[in-house]
Amino acid sequence: MSLTAAVSGASGYAGGEVLRLLANHPEVEIGAVTAHSSAGGRLGELQPHLHPLAERVLTETTAENLAGHDVVFLALPHGASGELATQLGEEVLIIDAAADHRLESASDWESFYGSAHQGTWPYGLPELPGQRDQLIGARRIAVPGCYPTTVLLGLAPAFAAGTVEPDDVVVVAATGTSGAGKSLKPHLLGSEVMGGMSPYGVGGVHRHTPEIEQGLTRVAGQPVQVSFTPTLAPMARGILATCTARIGPGVTASQLREAYAAHYAAEPFVHLLPEGQWPATKQVLGTNHVTLQLAVDNRAGRVIVVAASDNLTKGTAGGAVQSMNLALGLPETTGLTMIGAAP
Amino acid sequence: MSLTAAVSGASGYAGGEVLRLLANHPEVEIGAVTAHSSAGGRLGELQPHLHPLAERVLTETTAENLAGHDVVFLALPHGASGELATQLGEEVLIIDAAADHRLESASDWESFYGSAHQGTWPYGLPELPGQRDQLIGARRIAVPGCYPTTVLLGLAPAFAAGTVEPDDVVVVAATGTSGAGKSLKPHLLGSEVMGGMSPYGVGGVHRHTPEIEQGLTRVAGQPVQVSFTPTLAPMARGILATCTARIGPGVTASQLREAYAAHYAAEPFVHLLPEGQWPATKQVLGTNHVTLQLAVDNRAGRVIVVAASDNLTKGTAGGAVQSMNLALGLPETTGLTMIGAAP
Amino acid sequence: MSLTAAVSGASGYAGGEVLRLLANHPEVEIGAVTAHSSAGGRLGELQPHLHPLAERVLTETTAENLAGHDVVFLALPHGASGELATQLGEEVLIIDAAADHRLESASDWESFYGSAHQGTWPYGLPELPGQRDQLIGARRIAVPGCYPTTVLLGLAPAFAAGTVEPDDVVVVAATGTSGAGKSLKPHLLGSEVMGGMSPYGVGGVHRHTPEIEQGLTRVAGQPVQVSFTPTLAPMARGILATCTARIGPGVTASQLREAYAAHYAAEPFVHLLPEGQWPATKQVLGTNHVTLQLAVDNRAGRVIVVAASDNLTKGTAGGAVQSMNLALGLPETTGLTMIGAAP
Amino acid sequence: MSLTAAVSGASGYAGGEVLRLLANHPEVEIGAVTAHSSAGGRLGELQPHLHPLAERVLTETTAENLAGHDVVFLALPHGASGELATQLGEEVLIIDAAADHRLESASDWESFYGSAHQGTWPYGLPELPGQRDQLIGARRIAVPGCYPTTVLLGLAPAFAAGTVEPDDVVVVAATGTSGAGKSLKPHLLGSEVMGGMSPYGVGGVHRHTPEIEQGLTRVAGQPVQVSFTPTLAPMARGILATCTARIGPGVTASQLREAYAAHYAAEPFVHLLPEGQWPATKQVLGTNHVTLQLAVDNRAGRVIVVAASDNLTKGTAGGAVQSMNLALGLPETTGLTMIGAAP
Repeated sequence: MSLTAAVSGASGYAGGEVLRLLANHPEVEIGAVTAHSSAGGRLGELQPHLHPLAERVLTETTAENLAGHDVVFLALPHGASGELATQLGEEVLIIDAAADHRLESASDWESFYGSAHQGTWPYGLPELPGQRDQLIGARRIAVPGCYPTTVLLGLAPAFAAGTVEPDDVVVVAATGTSGAGKSLKPHLLGSEVMGGMSPYGVGGVHRHTPEIEQGLTRVAGQPVQVSFTPTLAPMARGILATCTARIGPGVTASQLREAYAAHYAAEPFVHLLPEGQWPATKQVLGTNHVTLQLAVDNRAGRVIVVAASDNLTKGTAGGAVQSMNLALGLPETTGLTMIGAAP
Repeated sequence: MSLTAAVSGASGYAGGEVLRLLANHPEVEIGAVTAHSSAGGRLGELQPHLHPLAERVLTETTAENLAGHDVVFLALPHGASGELATQLGEEVLIIDAAADHRLESASDWESFYGSAHQGTWPYGLPELPGQRDQLIGARRIAVPGCYPTTVLLGLAPAFAAGTVEPDDVVVVAATGTSGAGKSLKPHLLGSEVMGGMSPYGVGGVHRHTPEIEQGLTRVAGQPVQVSFTPTLAPMARGILATCTARIGPGVTASQLREAYAAHYAAEPFVHLLPEGQWPATKQVLGTNHVTLQLAVDNRAGRVIVVAASDNLTKGTAGGAVQSMNLALGLPETTGLTMIGAAP
Repeated sequence: MSLTAAVSGASGYAGGEVLRLLANHPEVEIGAVTAHSSAGGRLGELQPHLHPLAERVLTETTAENLAGHDVVFLALPHGASGELATQLGEEVLIIDAAADHRLESASDWESFYGSAHQGTWPYGLPELPGQRDQLIGARRIAVPGCYPTTVLLGLAPAFAAGTVEPDDVVVVAATGTSGAGKSLKPHLLGSEVMGGMSPYGVGGVHRHTPEIEQGLTRVAGQPVQVSFTPTLAPMARGILATCTARIGPGVTASQLREAYAAHYAAEPFVHLLPEGQWPATKQVLGTNHVTLQLAVDNRAGRVIVVAASDNLTKGTAGGAVQSMNLALGLPETTGLTMIGAAP
Repeated sequence: MSLTAAVSGASGYAGGEVLRLLANHPEVEIGAVTAHSSAGGRLGELQPHLHPLAERVLTETTAENLAGHDVVFLALPHGASGELATQLGEEVLIIDAAADHRLESASDWESFYGSAHQGTWPYGLPELPGQRDQLIGARRIAVPGCYPTTVLLGLAPAFAAGTVEPDDVVVVAATGTSGAGKSLKPHLLGSEVMGGMSPYGVGGVHRHTPEIEQGLTRVAGQPVQVSFTPTLAPMARGILATCTARIGPGVTASQLREAYAAHYAAEPFVHLLPEGQWPATKQVLGTNHVTLQLAVDNRAGRVIVVAASDNLTKGTAGGAVQSMNLALGLPETTGLTMIGAAP
């Protein structure tokens, strides 16, 4: 191992998942692990599943502590990455799991995040058309949001093939509670979550909405409008995204299946399932996979694509490591779990 | 108590919920409880939560055993109610929780159910415009499906007020596993269900699709097309339906809110929540309530209505008892739980 | 209705459950509902399942606000009830869900709670030998803890019949997360709770330990020692207590079954299940029931009694209302749910 | 890779977990995968989480199909391994996940399993005193049961150090539903399991009881009696075992901690947690680890040891692969997951 990586936000779910993957990565050694309010704590207490790292002690998240590594993972609230990146210098590979450098549109950024736009970094979703090349050799990477990862992989082939209409995409997605992080909010208590479902961010106000639209617009080559509704499901991990778009005139299900199969034929992590088999979040938990299936509803004039992912793996830390591999010239799948534990 | 009720399918989830409600109903005495493969068993073993009925023994589901009651609840697979109804005679109030008599369109019935159309009975969703009157004094009632109940109550006011377009409704709903009944299928095992989500019946093939379209078409006065996708959530009870429709020109969120508030102002079981509060299935579990909230997404040109219900209560047995009350001239809320246990 | 009740701690799980039961109680009208940090909030937002009470607004928990009612329920942290009781006066029926007045032993109180002993109030578990009489007409009632309720009902008949040894009782119990209240602690987050189990308070340090020992000692007429280990299960409600004691010489399983059957023959809420059927928490959720079953393991020389309860109902609010009924001269079962919703 | 392994019972949970681990094992290539009723099916459909193996097709479980491999894993119901082993020959390493060759006592075997005793094979729990040597070079291995694995690792150091009494051990354990396999039984349906807990096999009748007693008796050098009660928890994986024994005269908590620390100091998979931290099943899910913590309750005269494991990994397939590594002369940890996915 010749490369070292620092992980900030190491007491949270995203940071913990980065550490889980890096601990199994043959080319990267884990250096500094940092946090804010948990600085000084042992990983063994804060992330008790990371057995081999149990004795590591978290230090404060500062540029000083993060410096001196080949790669720095930022699993911090948005707003923190810009200054740290400047302090760490241009030669360090910085992989930001926050939203700061995802959106091209300054007005979208400002209206959804309420702060000054900071420009974009290469977008860490190599399966999108043309995107892989931007990540090879990059030194700044913006990790996509967990919902955008799932929805974009679910709909990109349909738009790339010109088979669906851009003006009325509807997505309803269910997420596990880890998507909300470890923040202590009443509605995230186990007593509240178990046994029930609820929506949030309804009406186009969720911050992942413009990110989904931006990604689909790039693929489609024309503006795409999305109605996006996220819901909270009684499970710790996983996203199930039901994505529908109006189907173009004369487009058939078999054409769509062929387009999807061709689009992802060479991808190690995105899979159109055999006909008749539907994605389920448990089949991808802990892995970097996204599974897909589609159906055409001629009665309603829509294609329905269902995509399943693990919000913490492909949706966050796995996507981050995959992009890191590309940036560092490593095989893209290095260190990434191909099989999760089920049931 | 002067009225007696027989309950068939009493070993299943729907039948068990009918018994739970009837046991608390001040005007109805439970008579025969019948089943098929569980005939001969004690309720205390088959439905151990029904403590006061523990010593009741199930008899075989036959017209003979069901005869002699004022009301007969049929919680059986579809296909069984027609002949039983004929045998029981016209004077008995028969409340059918199966689909046999819901669909007006013979071709819809035949294509979705694959058997001969049997005509319709009064549809037990009194909150739909004009529907309550059909139930008063009725002797045959078709209980709506759990998804149609939730979706129709979620979208009816928008269509009744002419505020949305009929040609591109999209609904994605999550259900608890009790919606699939007690059938022993591998994908319904706890090990498979817990911790994950999956879709089923995708592409307009779920049998509740034409029932939803029929109900919305009646309210809209013109054909409504619905793309409906159900998903299975890791919870025992509850439906969360995310219903979206293209909003009509110039329609505002406040107009919609007013339409909904007015539509349900007098309803004891359907509630538009105060602005800012969203439905959650746990707030209605075990009750006959449906809670609603809506948002307008001007960017996407859609209204999103989220509706929460208990698939076994308002979605099946509660709706059945509510309709029974109307048919028998009792106050509509008699015997129906107004507060469930939470968390 | 001629009686009024005030409920403090109305934003929490215990207070919410008291309100759920009182809302269905035919002889009691709900008066003031009070809280501390949530004062000023609507019940519709804080306890959205309490539909009929949605418009009630919480006031501050003060003696002034609680005064003027026939009954006052205190669902507050321990330490609060003594002063409030003094201020409210001797004529008011005060029902305290906290621990303050449960333990006779000042040294036990001081070593487990770390504050000055306040004496005891009548202990609200009428099914214990001699206990019901103390509650009739009482004006102060100490509601038992949820674990003691379950364990004492599970073991009392064995000790009352002199069939087990007092010196080595072992109890391991699993509780739903609502037992820990709504406090915002990381280990109570849904992401942490779902899909796993963990112990807490191991080694005889849980505060319910001396309460269990006190109750069993009273029944046995000699000191009883208990090893008690609680565990946290991935469910919102319910306690499953596995209680074992060394069996006395020559005692048989059928003798024990007879002792239990006789002990609870007249009890409306405690039930020895038929042989071969075992308690499960879901069969009592939302109800005031406790179900029991026992087996004798001659190889190990122990009787194992398993008891299932709902920690919020019989374990807290239901027990409180049952005791209130006795204190006020009402039928003991008034307003108490006999059938919960399952599955 | 020079070694090949066949896996029978590959459609079940145990077989699936063996495949998950072998797919990540650098020295073993997966050969035949066999099943009974699922023969002819694709792994992609039956075990959809095993992505890299999706195209493998199951063949019938016969000696012919299993022959020609270096290692054969039997994940079959008990009763099947004896004849297959004879047919496969003495040179093949056979690892049996069923109970056939675990119990030395013919009378225990016959009374708990009701068939003829078949003798014992080396017991695949290398962390027990003296056990590792029996596995090195073995060609027959009996994989311990999931409960015995967890309980024996939890109590062995206390007995090895002579610190506890042998005559009154009490164990209560909670398991995830995968412990019951994929069998289609009503009480294993998600609707029944979610949100509740229940016991089973109470009173010393669970088949793992004599296996636990046998293991502890070996370690203690004198007969050990155990009262064992298993319970079913609403989670897919994991065992939490609360193990208590009467503490010997004068034994202190620090002596016990030292005994445990020393006993497991060199073990890669069994860990006494730092004082104050308690085992939780989620911290070991998907891994081969067992975590332990203990407390002494002087009031009750007992030590309480809590042990957490994954019933499918260390409790079945992980233990099997660990033993295979020893038998084949590979490093003991080869191919075994050290970090699971959490939360």
